[in-house]
Amino acid sequence: MVNGNTLHTLSTPCLVLDEVKMHANIARLHARVRSLGVGLRAHVKTCKSIPIAERMGTLPHAPITVSTLQEAERFFAAGYRDVLYAVGIAPGKLDHVLDLRARGCDLMVVVDSVDGARAVADRGASVPTLIEIDSDDHRAGVRPHDQALLTIANTLRQGAVLRGVMTHAGASYGCRSSAAIVAMAEQERGAVVEAARRLQANGSATPIVSVGSTPTVMFAEHLTGVSEVRAGVFVFMDLVMVGLAVCTLADVALSVLVTVIGHQRQKNLLLTDGGWMALSRDHGTEQHAVDQRYGLVCDVAGQPFADLIVTDTNQEHGILARRDGGPIDWNAFPVGTLLRVLPNHACATAAQHDRYHVVRNDRNAVTTWPRFGGW
Amino acid sequence: MVNGNTLHTLSTPCLVLDEVKMHANIARLHARVRSLGVGLRAHVKTCKSIPIAERMGTLPHAPITVSTLQEAERFFAAGYRDVLYAVGIAPGKLDHVLDLRARGCDLMVVVDSVDGARAVADRGASVPTLIEIDSDDHRAGVRPHDQALLTIANTLRQGAVLRGVMTHAGASYGCRSSAAIVAMAEQERGAVVEAARRLQANGSATPIVSVGSTPTVMFAEHLTGVSEVRAGVFVFMDLVMVGLAVCTLADVALSVLVTVIGHQRQKNLLLTDGGWMALSRDHGTEQHAVDQRYGLVCDVAGQPFADLIVTDTNQEHGILARRDGGPIDWNAFPVGTLLRVLPNHACATAAQHDRYHVVRNDRNAVTTWPRFGGW
Repeated sequence: MVNGNTLHTLSTPCLVLDEVKMHANIARLHARVRSLGVGLRAHVKTCKSIPIAERMGTLPHAPITVSTLQEAERFFAAGYRDVLYAVGIAPGKLDHVLDLRARGCDLMVVVDSVDGARAVADRGASVPTLIEIDSDDHRAGVRPHDQALLTIANTLRQGAVLRGVMTHAGASYGCRSSAAIVAMAEQERGAVVEAARRLQANGSATPIVSVGSTPTVMFAEHLTGVSEVRAGVFVFMDLVMVGLAVCTLADVALSVLVTVIGHQRQKNLLLTDGGWMALSRDHGTEQHAVDQRYGLVCDVAGQPFADLIVTDTNQEHGILARRDGGPIDWNAFPVGTLLRVLPNHACATAAQHDRYHVVRNDRNAVTTWPRFGGW
Repeated sequence: MVNGNTLHTLSTPCLVLDEVKMHANIARLHARVRSLGVGLRAHVKTCKSIPIAERMGTLPHAPITVSTLQEAERFFAAGYRDVLYAVGIAPGKLDHVLDLRARGCDLMVVVDSVDGARAVADRGASVPTLIEIDSDDHRAGVRPHDQALLTIANTLRQGAVLRGVMTHAGASYGCRSSAAIVAMAEQERGAVVEAARRLQANGSATPIVSVGSTPTVMFAEHLTGVSEVRAGVFVFMDLVMVGLAVCTLADVALSVLVTVIGHQRQKNLLLTDGGWMALSRDHGTEQHAVDQRYGLVCDVAGQPFADLIVTDTNQEHGILARRDGGPIDWNAFPVGTLLRVLPNHACATAAQHDRYHVVRNDRNAVTTWPRFGGW
């Protein structure tokens, strides 16, 4: 709903979303997905917000990816039925999965081990399941040439339904050049397509061959053999994506509105009311060529001060300094000044809030969209 | 309320609070405060929970410290009236402060600059105000010998009410020995007592002389001249406090219950469903002699595995490895195993959750206490 607020009447700290930039980010990803000739299963863990997800999909109630069963519940209640729960299933969550499925949600789960497959199959409930493939030696998944891949598929046959394979090249976040991301995208694609080939040779259909991370989707040269991509952070973008050259600073749609509360002239620091409670403690640009510490500072209209960053955070204090250690222009930032901080990692920063204050470019009319959390 | 849950039926990840350990931590701090002969103004930013605050105070509806006006609202609604908002006041929040005061909350604010003092005084509403003193060159405050101290007091006289001084030696968290914390506690005390002396010599009464952080309260040799201490994290304790020798591992009352979801045998890693969404990204032990990364792993009864830590986190994945890199005993942690993770920083980890699941030692009957967030 539109309320009477403007950026100047909001209580700080709070989360601000530039809707025009968000729509441009969505349009850019949709164009990429179309040119790659694949489907989109947007990841809604970044936004956890129905109005935003509705703008991310390519069609009403499009396929989505979730990271918690709470997301599955909330989005199913909003009409989404084609849902992939993309975290390896804990056996203790299968009751909840079966309950959601019984209510009409076509919820798919993920396994990467024989034990996990057995837990799903033992329920005898034909739960559609993807096998997670490790494409980057980063976290979860079975390697595409591992003998276990076929054992998992055979185990699933005993009571579940194999619906395909998925992978997430999270290592793309650690790439140091665009060429490296291009190569990572091809590695991600190659791993999952090879796994699908082996499963098909073993007599299993794999209608879903799913890859994704925002960097690899944006840089992939082709996605031959892939049926769909998953991406989430593209909707907001953040400083990690800027550091990876996935976008520019001007594309970052999310920021935290804060107020200057103090001048520490002897220490050459500005203090704000935006600490880690509002920004998160994510320091995702730590290894980048440009370390943004806990966020890059902008004026209230969203224009960055390239040399002013959040150097440290306490619970409700942000500590700001010039990147080069140079003297702060105190007159430019009187106590009470509103600033906006661009986040390192949009997923982590948004997670600290329960609503988005939505603006259109630098116009001041503010709409509020809810966001949920929990598990 | 007690519900039908046990630790084995809760949905993971979730926050678990050992009530017996919590009560022992509270009793230990109360004994310290009594022996120091000062008052306690417990900081409720750590718990943000009425049932817990009721157990932290030394009397019903005791004085409290808050870090947001949301906390002031919630605790005032629960009957607390003597409330210190301990973050330098943003001028834009004064309407809210005045509204709370008009409703009967004796809310005090904090300033550390002439500009801040003028903003409060200009309201002409006799808002009781403490001057924040910088005792550790860490963050906010005016130094005790700074000429600005008296200018701030004189400015407050024009429409506010000076009620005293406060300081927070946040640098105590960076101490590397108990002797260093003892010295920091004396530095914290000395700074604020000296500031009070100067203000009194200038004709101002300072009924409140307030210091605090859990480490300095636990290690102070005496608090002559101090009227009250503020502390919050003592109620739960955490790995940072263990690293500072403020408590032992057995005293940590807060943990995150997680489930093993995968074995990465080639990488020698266990995966759980407890990522940074459940643990936070706080890495407060990074500079300690023992770096606990993102948390120390315990069995479901809360007994630590000294050699198993959360080495990395993604949004909903925890990545566990042995501290020494040695091989994991896979048979000890089958998929589905419940584990509990002790947090680096209780304030940050608790902030990721909306409720506490309360157990008494290793007994399994679970009570739920709510927790709030926001500003």
